[in-house]
Amino acid sequence: MKKDEQAHTLIDETIHQRTRLAIMSTLAPVESLDFNDLKAALDLSDGNLSTHLSALERAGYVTIAKGFRGRKPRTTVTMSAKGRQALKAYVDLLQSILDKTR
Amino acid sequence: MKKDEQAHTLIDETIHQRTRLAIMSTLAPVESLDFNDLKAALDLSDGNLSTHLSALERAGYVTIAKGFRGRKPRTTVTMSAKGRQALKAYVDLLQSILDKTR
Repeated sequence: MKKDEQAHTLIDETIHQRTRLAIMSTLAPVESLDFNDLKAALDLSDGNLSTHLSALERAGYVTIAKGFRGRKPRTTVTMSAKGRQALKAYVDLLQSILDKTR
Repeated sequence: MKKDEQAHTLIDETIHQRTRLAIMSTLAPVESLDFNDLKAALDLSDGNLSTHLSALERAGYVTIAKGFRGRKPRTTVTMSAKGRQALKAYVDLLQSILDKTR
């Protein structure tokens, strides 16, 4: 294995960071969630969740849509196809690393 | 689940950091390795490996023994019982997070 092919150097840090891993894992089975539901599910502050969602949005892993439900503002977070692909690659790679420890 | 019991907040950052995860995974099946073998296996620089080993040593997850093989200085890295326990807890927790994505 060449230096740039070492498993650990291939770990996607955008997903590996523990809060973003929690966000991606929570979105995976449902695709879309309200910002407030995601915040409640992971018990994060507005600021913390926003910061990590911005990082995921910059990577193209989620889209963030602002709208209204009735008169209430509502923000919906959706995992993109690229995000799903990246998460799958991350899970497969981590799995192969974790398997070494068994 | 209470705030301090959220799975992602329980991730052990000492192990989760990708280079240290690679070191712990490489040590797990063998318990002990020469510094130079570990360096070669993971294609790390002396400085980078030393820095991460120090962090693992401070956490009590590895012990580092300096000695000689003949006249050649030799440094042996060994996973401690505490390190093995921490790795097991980390793998189980990560597994439960990754399982959510399937």
